[in-house]
Amino acid sequence: MSQPATLPDLATLRALPPRDLADTLLALSPAELGALFERFGDEAMAELVGELDPRDAARLIRKLSRPAAADLLEEMAPDEAADVVEELPPEQAEPLLTEVEPDAAREIRELLAYPPESAGGMMTPQYVAISPDLTADEALAHLRRLAEEAEVVYYVYVTDPATRRLLGVLSLRNLVLSRPTTPVRDLMIREVIRVRADAPREEAARLLDQHHLIALPVVDEQDRLLGVITADDAADVLLEEAGEDLERVGGAQPLDEPYITASPLTLARKRVGWLLLLFVAEAYTGTVLRHFADELERVVALAFFIPLLIGTGGNTGSQVVTTVIRAMAMGEVRMRDAFRVWRKEVATAVLLGAAMAAAALLRARLLGVAPEVGLTVALAAAAIVLWAATVAGLLPLVLRRLGVDPAVVSAPLIATLVDGTGLVIYFEVARRVLGL
Amino acid sequence: MSQPATLPDLATLRALPPRDLADTLLALSPAELGALFERFGDEAMAELVGELDPRDAARLIRKLSRPAAADLLEEMAPDEAADVVEELPPEQAEPLLTEVEPDAAREIRELLAYPPESAGGMMTPQYVAISPDLTADEALAHLRRLAEEAEVVYYVYVTDPATRRLLGVLSLRNLVLSRPTTPVRDLMIREVIRVRADAPREEAARLLDQHHLIALPVVDEQDRLLGVITADDAADVLLEEAGEDLERVGGAQPLDEPYITASPLTLARKRVGWLLLLFVAEAYTGTVLRHFADELERVVALAFFIPLLIGTGGNTGSQVVTTVIRAMAMGEVRMRDAFRVWRKEVATAVLLGAAMAAAALLRARLLGVAPEVGLTVALAAAAIVLWAATVAGLLPLVLRRLGVDPAVVSAPLIATLVDGTGLVIYFEVARRVLGL
Repeated sequence: MSQPATLPDLATLRALPPRDLADTLLALSPAELGALFERFGDEAMAELVGELDPRDAARLIRKLSRPAAADLLEEMAPDEAADVVEELPPEQAEPLLTEVEPDAAREIRELLAYPPESAGGMMTPQYVAISPDLTADEALAHLRRLAEEAEVVYYVYVTDPATRRLLGVLSLRNLVLSRPTTPVRDLMIREVIRVRADAPREEAARLLDQHHLIALPVVDEQDRLLGVITADDAADVLLEEAGEDLERVGGAQPLDEPYITASPLTLARKRVGWLLLLFVAEAYTGTVLRHFADELERVVALAFFIPLLIGTGGNTGSQVVTTVIRAMAMGEVRMRDAFRVWRKEVATAVLLGAAMAAAALLRARLLGVAPEVGLTVALAAAAIVLWAATVAGLLPLVLRRLGVDPAVVSAPLIATLVDGTGLVIYFEVARRVLGL
Repeated sequence: MSQPATLPDLATLRALPPRDLADTLLALSPAELGALFERFGDEAMAELVGELDPRDAARLIRKLSRPAAADLLEEMAPDEAADVVEELPPEQAEPLLTEVEPDAAREIRELLAYPPESAGGMMTPQYVAISPDLTADEALAHLRRLAEEAEVVYYVYVTDPATRRLLGVLSLRNLVLSRPTTPVRDLMIREVIRVRADAPREEAARLLDQHHLIALPVVDEQDRLLGVITADDAADVLLEEAGEDLERVGGAQPLDEPYITASPLTLARKRVGWLLLLFVAEAYTGTVLRHFADELERVVALAFFIPLLIGTGGNTGSQVVTTVIRAMAMGEVRMRDAFRVWRKEVATAVLLGAAMAAAALLRARLLGVAPEVGLTVALAAAAIVLWAATVAGLLPLVLRRLGVDPAVVSAPLIATLVDGTGLVIYFEVARRVLGL
């Protein structure tokens, strides 16, 4: 079955995006996979598997013999190996780890002790730490011995040999460029940006991004160096967070597994809560309409504009809320800017409200309803746009103040809030203009 | 006015997120800024200014004397300096560049020649390129001379000395760890992942992210090395793209300036197009309702459920579309998965439709309408959920196939599409169940 000639070559595999790489590797039979490992070697395969989503990597691991899987884990970066082991069922993870070479197994187990959502859960123990008393030359010689083990030798950390406390950092570049006899103590930067292992991983990712770092040291509560987080992992965390915001804004709880493998039951479970909550919230529109049933029966034409008006309110709110949540995610807008946001959104809504009133007037004329009904619809359109912008501009800020993720103010939630209140505005305008 | 004692110290400034750093620096008077430059030196200030959004950096530059601004630009990374100059009005940029030291000015001008949205527009010319004929030791010696100029010496690129074509890459780590006499030719990796200068910058960012690179070489159409793009810039591009998706999904054209400085007129301009388009699209709901005016007049109770039903359809659609767009952005879902997506969404919608039908039945009983109306509402709810999921699941895929950014299938657009068609479903169900 496994014709070596049909196996993909290494350069092709390396060039594939992770999703395609997973599809290609997972489509191979165990025998073909074995042939691939034999041809490319464990190290090259470990590099490829390290690019996969940990869930895909775990599925791949389960197709390998236990010794082959153990060899692969040994060659992988320990943080990536730990992420993969985390995705295996415990009854498979434990026997596999006992076959992994003891040092590598210990590193993986140590990393598994940190929750995956913490900075500690993203770190790798493969850093280089040296004593401040070495000279640049001695440090380089030390590096030559150590660096095969270390993922990130671009930064070298300086720790107190006795306490392991983090004292400073220097870049490999500085070390290479310095006079060989200069002591490390005089080369190192003392103000090291660092993160606590128990901090949320988003905090670590944001520090890496903001300060344009290649690696960030992770310390414990006694400031002892535990590991480093690399910039490439940070980008993934920030993108995942942005993706979760997108799903929340759409009114669903974010998926914590890839969409393509999520079952309909999982999808339904992630969505039904919000859907029912929004249904209950929206249900009062029925009460509002029943309340105005008399007016509706006297001027049935009013009903024609209900979806149009509440739709416009919802659309306005959706535009505002996504723009404000994006600005909050980028750190541009904070609670103290609330008044500024509100003023800006109201000014914008005055402009948009005028445009929508004109459009509503035109539409009323096209539908051939009475001019007073047209006037009612136009005034209501302007008022609803203004109201939607106010609610959507302020609610995310208020929620963050209350400690709630602002992205739960989804487009559907704003639409729902504006639907009923928008109807009240509509019928109150109608009462006054039409004298109902 | 400028009391040096009141000026912030460097460590404090370094620890600030970019937004706060901008606020702090822009709040200073020109005299205070001058004092800051004097105290910390151009190099430290260039590093700080490099962390700012280019627009903020440009505002800061305009508060400096021209010689001070020129000194600052010289010390900044050329790619960051070019981004800042791009934000200055041409009548200020030109005279400023003539004061910048010629080599630095030339680098900045060369970068300005590439559109900011291209890979070339993100690159820095500060890379290190060596000949394949050097030994590891000679290469290190060369690096020692060159690397002060270079931003990224973690990778060393190997180019043909005659043609400047990119031949290979090696990491500083490899160079440091190799036997001194090994020729670079034998150390370098020949399959270098690279990007063309005219490629979109998102492509470059995705390559850096997928392959966990620290830097990506940029080449011209003859494969000559022009510059490098660093991973920290890639994260910013990917996050900006994710933020734009968020705004598009909310139904607004993304802002191309920070929200906090955007004027209401700009905001209105970015939103009015979609708002009017959605209004026109939504207007046919009026036509639908007028078409069913007889039914509405006979059973006014049907009107009570209009916002509830179309709201549920819109919410379902919004959940599906944001989940699918997120999956597409992460490369999990492609056109060839369309059938799989549709099957998954239909299965999910069957579950959700059943839940919503039950909720609708309950709500109808609470409102005290006739049982047949309740049945109508329940059946319509299930059918509308199914319909919304189908439209929202397939439309983004179809649009990408047509070359349109799938994120334009915003939550409001889906809601609008489902509103009118949902009403048709509702009244057709009503006709059959109620025999109207």
